[in-house]
Amino acid sequence: MANGNINGVNVDQLFSTINAIKENPGLAKFKFRAKNQWINGGQNRTSIKEFYGAGREDTTRIKTFVFDNDEPEVLLGQDNGANPVEFVLHALAGCLTTSLVYHAAAQGIKIDAVESRFEGDLDLRGFLGMNEDVRNGYQNIRVTFKIKADAPEEKLKELCELAQKRSPVFDVVTNGVPVKVQLANG
Amino acid sequence: MANGNINGVNVDQLFSTINAIKENPGLAKFKFRAKNQWINGGQNRTSIKEFYGAGREDTTRIKTFVFDNDEPEVLLGQDNGANPVEFVLHALAGCLTTSLVYHAAAQGIKIDAVESRFEGDLDLRGFLGMNEDVRNGYQNIRVTFKIKADAPEEKLKELCELAQKRSPVFDVVTNGVPVKVQLANG
Repeated sequence: MANGNINGVNVDQLFSTINAIKENPGLAKFKFRAKNQWINGGQNRTSIKEFYGAGREDTTRIKTFVFDNDEPEVLLGQDNGANPVEFVLHALAGCLTTSLVYHAAAQGIKIDAVESRFEGDLDLRGFLGMNEDVRNGYQNIRVTFKIKADAPEEKLKELCELAQKRSPVFDVVTNGVPVKVQLANG
Repeated sequence: MANGNINGVNVDQLFSTINAIKENPGLAKFKFRAKNQWINGGQNRTSIKEFYGAGREDTTRIKTFVFDNDEPEVLLGQDNGANPVEFVLHALAGCLTTSLVYHAAAQGIKIDAVESRFEGDLDLRGFLGMNEDVRNGYQNIRVTFKIKADAPEEKLKELCELAQKRSPVFDVVTNGVPVKVQLANG
């Protein structure tokens, strides 16, 4: 049904990727990476470039993406960047949107517009170690999507649910991931 | 013990924040926000500015921070930005680093340098819905920290553990958060 380019997604390439992975599941394995360096106070800088995927170290990415975290004044920073918990919302927003758009493309559904808003509740007493009953991270995140597409309301709801069902960052943020931290000094 | 400015952190302000929250725990409640708009294919744009905290809507932040997500070629994008799962690593890096630096400052420990590396394993078969036994998100994340500070190795280990114990994004990524998504069309 779907073919060519839909929503800016090359659907032929999408299906040939799926077929290649069916024959060789190892092609589906990716390793994403980031390096970070502290600058001062709440400011630190991440560089993102290299990744492994489709059976090899990537050689196509030319740019290094660089992002600074910082904190606003009230959180003792200089406001030279969004803060880490705000970047979580950015990652979640991007992943839900891309999941929605790609899976719509796979179904041959043309999307006109997608907008979304994110809000998360955080109680500083967790970070500050003031109350062990208060968690450090977000207690809740609320998301609102608006989708314009050539499809009935029922189909848009289905796409919104499919985005949640398939999004890697939605999975990470809702279910958690084992993180192993080591100190490698010297 | 600690006072003035340590590691770029105003420690007097830090302790007066803690005292203010002791008297009025409601001041610890923050709401962070993001808006996102789809551009094309795997590219979408997040704007971050407003937040609520310390009992009021913030009025100090002047800049709107804008970040694009995109995907590399092998994931059918144009590589106009880091991708959402890479931004998760950026958020995690920033939050562990800031947690480490702030809590060191609170203890009066001067940090000289912090560097960290992050790598996460992701199997595309989850996102593609090809195998229900494969999760969509990261299966594991590995983190390596290097810390230079005027403190013995044992103290650096303790700081590295304290960062994990207190970091909001570490909590989000390891433990998960309830996320409620609604479609608000029309």
